[in-house]
Amino acid sequence: MEFSKCWLDYSPAEIKEKALFTLAVLCEGSIVESAVKEYDMAIQGMTAVKPEIVKERKPESVVLLLDEFLPVGKDGYEIRREESSYCITGQSESGVLYGVFHFLRVIRTGHLEEFPIQNAPEMPLRIMNHWDNMDGSIERGYSGESFFYKDYEILYNERTEQYVRMMASIGINAIVINNVNVHEKETYLITDTYLEQVKQYSDLFNRYGIKLFTSVNFAAPMELADFDNCDPLNERVAAWWKETAKHIYEVIPDFGGFLVKADSEGRPGPFTYDRTHADGANMLARALKPYGGIVIWRCFVYNCGQDWRDKKTDRARAAYDNFIGLDGQFDENVILQIKNGPMDFQVREPVSPLFGGLKKTNMILEVEIAQEYTGQQIDLCYLLPMWREILDFDTFVRGEGSTVLNIVKGQTHGQKLCGMAAVINTGDDYNWTGNDLAAANTYGYGRLAMNPSLDSESIAKEWTELTFGKAPEKEIVAMLMNSWNTYEKYTSPLGIGWMVTPHYHYGPDVDGYEYDRWGTYHRADRNGLGVDRTPAGTGYTAQYNEPWASVYAEKEKCPEELLLFFHYVGYEEKLKSGKTLIQHIYDTHFEGVEEVEKMITVWKGLQGKIPSDAFDRVSERLERQLANSVEWRDRINTYFYRKSGVLDDKGRKIYE
Amino acid sequence: MEFSKCWLDYSPAEIKEKALFTLAVLCEGSIVESAVKEYDMAIQGMTAVKPEIVKERKPESVVLLLDEFLPVGKDGYEIRREESSYCITGQSESGVLYGVFHFLRVIRTGHLEEFPIQNAPEMPLRIMNHWDNMDGSIERGYSGESFFYKDYEILYNERTEQYVRMMASIGINAIVINNVNVHEKETYLITDTYLEQVKQYSDLFNRYGIKLFTSVNFAAPMELADFDNCDPLNERVAAWWKETAKHIYEVIPDFGGFLVKADSEGRPGPFTYDRTHADGANMLARALKPYGGIVIWRCFVYNCGQDWRDKKTDRARAAYDNFIGLDGQFDENVILQIKNGPMDFQVREPVSPLFGGLKKTNMILEVEIAQEYTGQQIDLCYLLPMWREILDFDTFVRGEGSTVLNIVKGQTHGQKLCGMAAVINTGDDYNWTGNDLAAANTYGYGRLAMNPSLDSESIAKEWTELTFGKAPEKEIVAMLMNSWNTYEKYTSPLGIGWMVTPHYHYGPDVDGYEYDRWGTYHRADRNGLGVDRTPAGTGYTAQYNEPWASVYAEKEKCPEELLLFFHYVGYEEKLKSGKTLIQHIYDTHFEGVEEVEKMITVWKGLQGKIPSDAFDRVSERLERQLANSVEWRDRINTYFYRKSGVLDDKGRKIYE
Repeated sequence: MEFSKCWLDYSPAEIKEKALFTLAVLCEGSIVESAVKEYDMAIQGMTAVKPEIVKERKPESVVLLLDEFLPVGKDGYEIRREESSYCITGQSESGVLYGVFHFLRVIRTGHLEEFPIQNAPEMPLRIMNHWDNMDGSIERGYSGESFFYKDYEILYNERTEQYVRMMASIGINAIVINNVNVHEKETYLITDTYLEQVKQYSDLFNRYGIKLFTSVNFAAPMELADFDNCDPLNERVAAWWKETAKHIYEVIPDFGGFLVKADSEGRPGPFTYDRTHADGANMLARALKPYGGIVIWRCFVYNCGQDWRDKKTDRARAAYDNFIGLDGQFDENVILQIKNGPMDFQVREPVSPLFGGLKKTNMILEVEIAQEYTGQQIDLCYLLPMWREILDFDTFVRGEGSTVLNIVKGQTHGQKLCGMAAVINTGDDYNWTGNDLAAANTYGYGRLAMNPSLDSESIAKEWTELTFGKAPEKEIVAMLMNSWNTYEKYTSPLGIGWMVTPHYHYGPDVDGYEYDRWGTYHRADRNGLGVDRTPAGTGYTAQYNEPWASVYAEKEKCPEELLLFFHYVGYEEKLKSGKTLIQHIYDTHFEGVEEVEKMITVWKGLQGKIPSDAFDRVSERLERQLANSVEWRDRINTYFYRKSGVLDDKGRKIYE
Repeated sequence: MEFSKCWLDYSPAEIKEKALFTLAVLCEGSIVESAVKEYDMAIQGMTAVKPEIVKERKPESVVLLLDEFLPVGKDGYEIRREESSYCITGQSESGVLYGVFHFLRVIRTGHLEEFPIQNAPEMPLRIMNHWDNMDGSIERGYSGESFFYKDYEILYNERTEQYVRMMASIGINAIVINNVNVHEKETYLITDTYLEQVKQYSDLFNRYGIKLFTSVNFAAPMELADFDNCDPLNERVAAWWKETAKHIYEVIPDFGGFLVKADSEGRPGPFTYDRTHADGANMLARALKPYGGIVIWRCFVYNCGQDWRDKKTDRARAAYDNFIGLDGQFDENVILQIKNGPMDFQVREPVSPLFGGLKKTNMILEVEIAQEYTGQQIDLCYLLPMWREILDFDTFVRGEGSTVLNIVKGQTHGQKLCGMAAVINTGDDYNWTGNDLAAANTYGYGRLAMNPSLDSESIAKEWTELTFGKAPEKEIVAMLMNSWNTYEKYTSPLGIGWMVTPHYHYGPDVDGYEYDRWGTYHRADRNGLGVDRTPAGTGYTAQYNEPWASVYAEKEKCPEELLLFFHYVGYEEKLKSGKTLIQHIYDTHFEGVEEVEKMITVWKGLQGKIPSDAFDRVSERLERQLANSVEWRDRINTYFYRKSGVLDDKGRKIYE
């Protein structure tokens, strides 16, 4: 089994400092053991010398300590120089592990001047969601097949172990091991059919400070037992879940809990029985509560049988409309998982207004590392700048400073169960992520969830150095940092989204979703395009607190990158740049392709500075990205030229 | 196993004439035996009395005779009254069988005054093409799964027998048992893996005067043997095919031959080796020739990797451009199978210009009974009027009267191997064809291929009477006769085609194929739509003989139903009716839905006159058709309203 080490690359490096060759372990526990194992592996990898591992303090050593009163925050750590030694003190076992990973990062990148370091995860929950199915496929997976499952069997091998180390190294502390769309076989994950094997995963995860969660099928009592309903207020149903939870915890005492997609895109849920999401979630939560388990309930609930003729119904409103009335009704061990935007992981969306609405409900921000709508790990699209913007968005729910970040780290409302979740982009490809550079998103997500004040560029640098060393750093960081902007330029304009090939979501199809049932329309006609979501239109803007409600509702004030999301705009209306909308569309689409061409030139210049296999893999992806960007440019330009009849004022080629 | 008897319904009927209860069989052979068996089954079914079957003439009997000098044409027959007896004389065994089926039809519908009858098949070959795959699926099948195959096994059961009787009853004399896209397992149909079972089919078919053909994989030598190429001029490849043919005929002496889709939509073919289609077809033909086998070579060859930006390449030109230069180069036992139109079975296309081009090549006209683009056996679309128009189209290849019919019946060029082929619409649904009324197309195709001078309405009447009796005849015939026109009205306008959901081909998606690689464009912009195929455009019109080349090239002369196929027309240009193009689009789309509504009213009036299961099945289809027509109407109208900005002059609802 061959696979890339990614950012845990401990290949030979020059290490002279004597202290690094002795590890004094003054604490214990299974997670500490993982930290020791990692350190041992790293030093051996880098130096071919096995470090001495001792149980007492020694001069010139690296000392591991655990101090639960260390004033750094839960699972935090401190790294100090003490004379000729280094002390890594964890607030917990996880803190020790995170400290060791941090220390190894510093060694590997040679920034030893940075000490002392004090750090702690800022968000309580830092979750990965796998959309892996037990047949081995991955929903929205672009990096091969699942490494968790094959033919309805659970896999356990070297890859599993490296995977968990990778997750721990970036601070992940919860993993959901199966797709939110729970199919037939996956329903059995919480039964004896699979529990022993799930326990094997859970044990491994625990040794790295990670809780295991499963996605569950709300209709499980009907599929697994002989129930004719799964009404959450049916006492027999509730009792079944209690029994089920009891049994899960008998087998897996450290089980994290359930992730649930209910009443969404055809999944079963409480609506069938005229019950609320709170009824559904609380019923499950009560089953898990005796064991400390939690329920994560997704807010991706909308009418997916919409009529394109209907201009009043607005999918963007759905999450807010469905959940705002339930604020305060969820049990303490329920968390709502809210997608970053009101639609579905488009290249540009406003922040979901639900973050600025709920006050008495635990919330998790859900983002998608898997590049479903952002190039599918063929096209380069470094997503950290997008996530940064989302976290920094001020909801004003409790006045200024109520940013999404402050909400999901528990500061705004004082919540304990909150954080971030992300749909991961990994698979069993050699390089884990299809495009080698897409691992920057995997890495970056964890780093951001752990330390959300980090800026995107620092994370890009860190990842690049760990993965490829210093030589190509500048160029790769520049490529990463521009890539989201570039992708946005050649795809759908100004926040309107959705002009993608239906179902696949790669490549352009301007009208692909325009007359469909998914509530995803651009409303382009011969005069202009865009969706009026102001009070005169669908009224969506009113879901925001002020000043956003007003800002978004006024065409002149609306942030331009979201203009078509909120407003219908004529092709010949002027933007702030002084350009007409149609000219902006043409310009950005020509620019997008030019930027991809430049990226290819930059990449070619890196030949020799990057291992040749990785170089070739990325080169191949970039060529496909170029073809994709050309197709987008031409189709978008032609589509709007045919509709508007307006020529490009620079006279470039637009096909008729 | 339950299935409908379709038009071979021998349910109780009042039969008084004594002659019908004695069958005097004065000829012999396995096909005659099938005729006797059919007669026996029919009389028993209708009267519950077993007819007496004797070997000598008797007064008051039905006499079966064979007279190869009967002056009616090959496989023809004569039915006469002789005093109180009926004489059915066949020119061949098949003639006897066809005569018996005709006689039974007459008995069943009570038209005994029609005698004497002389009739003979007018086309030498009357072929059914099955697009059945051995996994049990049917490409473009809308009536359940295959009844030939399941899980790569060949089925043989009661359904097989009724199927063959149905085919013989309408005069089919050749059946291709597998999909032209020959997948991995189907490649083995001509090997010992399956030959014994194929022989079972062939034996059954032969007893009904039908030859069995298989579709073959041109790359079979590479897949079945260890060849590294399948170059038709490679002597070893040719030798392999000769050996293979020899073996096939050892097992199945009556084997018909091969159908080949080569160099089309990704299928292998001679182009790979810079060889012509003639090279490929002749190589196979020479392998079959010693045994009387034939090769049917499809002309559905085009560039399916076209660039939508390219306005010069024209898929419509492809069949002609690919094959016209090969006229006269094909061996005598090769036939080219040419789709009726230059595109692909759209609701309206001009006739393929290849029919008016080739002079020294055997030709078969290919039509599609399976309603791939014409409502998928959900929507009612009786196709006989379309086929009638195609057959009556005068190519002028040898002056006036060179109709497609005269070409494919061998009159124009004196060809012996010619006729019609059709992609059948059957599956293992109870009613065989998804929509019970779609069986009118199955039936009608055979009747038309046998007697192409029959008009569509007579065939509709005949089928309706045989299937449902006289009571609902008038209404059903009217429904059938209007249905193509109705379907055309609510789908894509004036011959432009293709505005369907990609891949599925049901339901509207105006731009679904507009920017794709299939060469299927409508070129709609804010001013108009249509493809310029005149000499100023793609030059396609020049592939026709005069007067068509001129007629099609001139917008004013061009038959209006094909206007957008040949010309780009402005929305506000006037049609012959005085209406603008855009108003014509709106009007036809509103009318189409209204006609479906009327059809439903008519159908509802038939309750009680039709077996209730069939009534319910058709009712359900009609409701789906209505929903489909509404969706087509609204999407097409909105699409063109958004592009044109022109309001409906009758003020009806067009969504913005």
